[in-house]
Amino acid sequence: MKRIGRYTIALDSAPKIAGYAAVAGKKEKEGPLGSQFDRSYKDTSLGESSWEKAESRLQQEAMEIALQKACLKPEDIDTVFAGDLLNQCISSTFGLRSMNIPFLGQYGACSTMAQTLAMAALFVESGAARTAAAVTSSHFCTAERQFRLPLEYGGQRPPTSQWTATASGAAIVMPQSAVMATDTVKIKNLRETSSPEKTPVITAVCIGKITDFGIKDANNMGAAMAPAAAQTILDFLRDTGTAPSDYDLIVTGDLGRVGSTLLLQLTAQEGVDISHVHNDCGKMLFDPAKQDVHAGGSGCGCSACVLCSKLLNDVKAGTLKNILFAATGALLSTTSTQQGESIPSIAHLVHIRGI
Amino acid sequence: MKRIGRYTIALDSAPKIAGYAAVAGKKEKEGPLGSQFDRSYKDTSLGESSWEKAESRLQQEAMEIALQKACLKPEDIDTVFAGDLLNQCISSTFGLRSMNIPFLGQYGACSTMAQTLAMAALFVESGAARTAAAVTSSHFCTAERQFRLPLEYGGQRPPTSQWTATASGAAIVMPQSAVMATDTVKIKNLRETSSPEKTPVITAVCIGKITDFGIKDANNMGAAMAPAAAQTILDFLRDTGTAPSDYDLIVTGDLGRVGSTLLLQLTAQEGVDISHVHNDCGKMLFDPAKQDVHAGGSGCGCSACVLCSKLLNDVKAGTLKNILFAATGALLSTTSTQQGESIPSIAHLVHIRGI
Repeated sequence: MKRIGRYTIALDSAPKIAGYAAVAGKKEKEGPLGSQFDRSYKDTSLGESSWEKAESRLQQEAMEIALQKACLKPEDIDTVFAGDLLNQCISSTFGLRSMNIPFLGQYGACSTMAQTLAMAALFVESGAARTAAAVTSSHFCTAERQFRLPLEYGGQRPPTSQWTATASGAAIVMPQSAVMATDTVKIKNLRETSSPEKTPVITAVCIGKITDFGIKDANNMGAAMAPAAAQTILDFLRDTGTAPSDYDLIVTGDLGRVGSTLLLQLTAQEGVDISHVHNDCGKMLFDPAKQDVHAGGSGCGCSACVLCSKLLNDVKAGTLKNILFAATGALLSTTSTQQGESIPSIAHLVHIRGI
Repeated sequence: MKRIGRYTIALDSAPKIAGYAAVAGKKEKEGPLGSQFDRSYKDTSLGESSWEKAESRLQQEAMEIALQKACLKPEDIDTVFAGDLLNQCISSTFGLRSMNIPFLGQYGACSTMAQTLAMAALFVESGAARTAAAVTSSHFCTAERQFRLPLEYGGQRPPTSQWTATASGAAIVMPQSAVMATDTVKIKNLRETSSPEKTPVITAVCIGKITDFGIKDANNMGAAMAPAAAQTILDFLRDTGTAPSDYDLIVTGDLGRVGSTLLLQLTAQEGVDISHVHNDCGKMLFDPAKQDVHAGGSGCGCSACVLCSKLLNDVKAGTLKNILFAATGALLSTTSTQQGESIPSIAHLVHIRGI
């Protein structure tokens, strides 16, 4: 492992993502990526007695499926990194408590999928863990009633508002050299087909700084988070001496339509045009013509379920070879907003390649 | 870096704690450790307009003083790990946002000082950071009104309840080989005195698992957290093949009197007697005869301010040579308690030596 520039850490061993899974709710299933989720629920209570317990179940199930896909058991994981939006991160702690895995709770708001994946990769690269997991989630109903208004109130949503995804994503990170039971299948495929499956590996991470452009509108998270995304993406490009055209895709977490437009403006102001390679998980998750989500999807689960379905599937298929996954988080609470504070934000970036 | 047993990570390079600081409130200042804090405030609002802003200031000031003591500036720190008890960890994000340091939010409830210090040490050991910081805080007034009752209500406290410390602790971790401006002073001292100052170094960390013994009384955190402390301490002793008598002190974070008694019973049940070397920051921070804190101190700031004053001072002075710092966290929220859930808990451990 070596530091490149001020903010980027290159992972020489390029740990692999050995398994990943996305579990989602009804609205997400009805969106453009619906067919790519490992599991979905029409009843977003998942049969549980509260939305919070349902969100915990999303994490537990995403983790269980990711483990199955990597042919591993919970006791094979040395460290799990997890976090979420709920007060005191209860989706993670209650969702994963039965697994008995050494647990390091992370708080990065909606940047959590990038943060946990970066931590898992750093632990595997350094030998602090032989196998590590990254998990996060969000749920429309838990987020709405915690951060905004009671669901029954039916408050009107402004055009800048985003729709918190009901979803979870989980990824298992291991050394490239680790041979898994799935590898024998892969070797068989390699003999039989001319286009073998690629392996997603993590070659670098970039840890973000807290930015604050003074946005105070809690219904415009995209605007609050765009500066953090711009900063981290520009820091990474500067540190590595690369250009946007070196990547197939630079994908942000949940800026939505408003925040994505601002991101392109902010990076253009610094002389960097990322418009031809940029997309945003919040824009990809829902169909704006058919689904009423205003500026797009949001929440930790948004970027988590898009990464752990469509994006990593495309890396495995070889249609994406080289991507920057930059999830963004708005670091507010209802208390900070009620006290008149602005919304600080952060973005962490993970560089993923298919090899 | 190498893993020892199932849960412990040995840090071959033993990164040093190059600077540390504790900032505390009035009640903490009046306690037995009062003279050892770097700064204290009689007015626990710190002149701010809310308790939450005051808590953010505690973190900011602890970090600033720790940096000064290590002769460093914020831009010298590659990564800061911070977290706290407030919803969405706003004490940390608002307290540290102006410093412009790559930030990784951690959530471990009252185990946060051990978790952040472990992360900082792992980053420095692996080369992911040249210099890393660990910060946390708690504030009686923010915790009381968030987790329990409005302060004005004056609710009666049961004997098992603990008093959330108004305090922050910060520590700066660097490679042992890093030469600091303070070292020239130390070399001078070395020539002039026969008992030179020791350097606190981190030789191992042990990451905890989530435990849940079914305790549901949010006024008895000590009982909820004791099983986590027992598990992590026993895991570490088993992994390293060491005995309690190999250490000067095994110190838990904030079990208080009730939880400490339970910890000694739980470890004794496993055939390990730690009673002769055990103490608890929650017992050390306040004077039970003179200060009305029921079962003792608690909160992230409790173990943070005790570690970053008395304990590390004693390691530097040579009166403590070899300690296990095991901070414990109760992973509940008001929502989980209102929904009838029990209180999961966790403990992380950091092995600190003076060399």
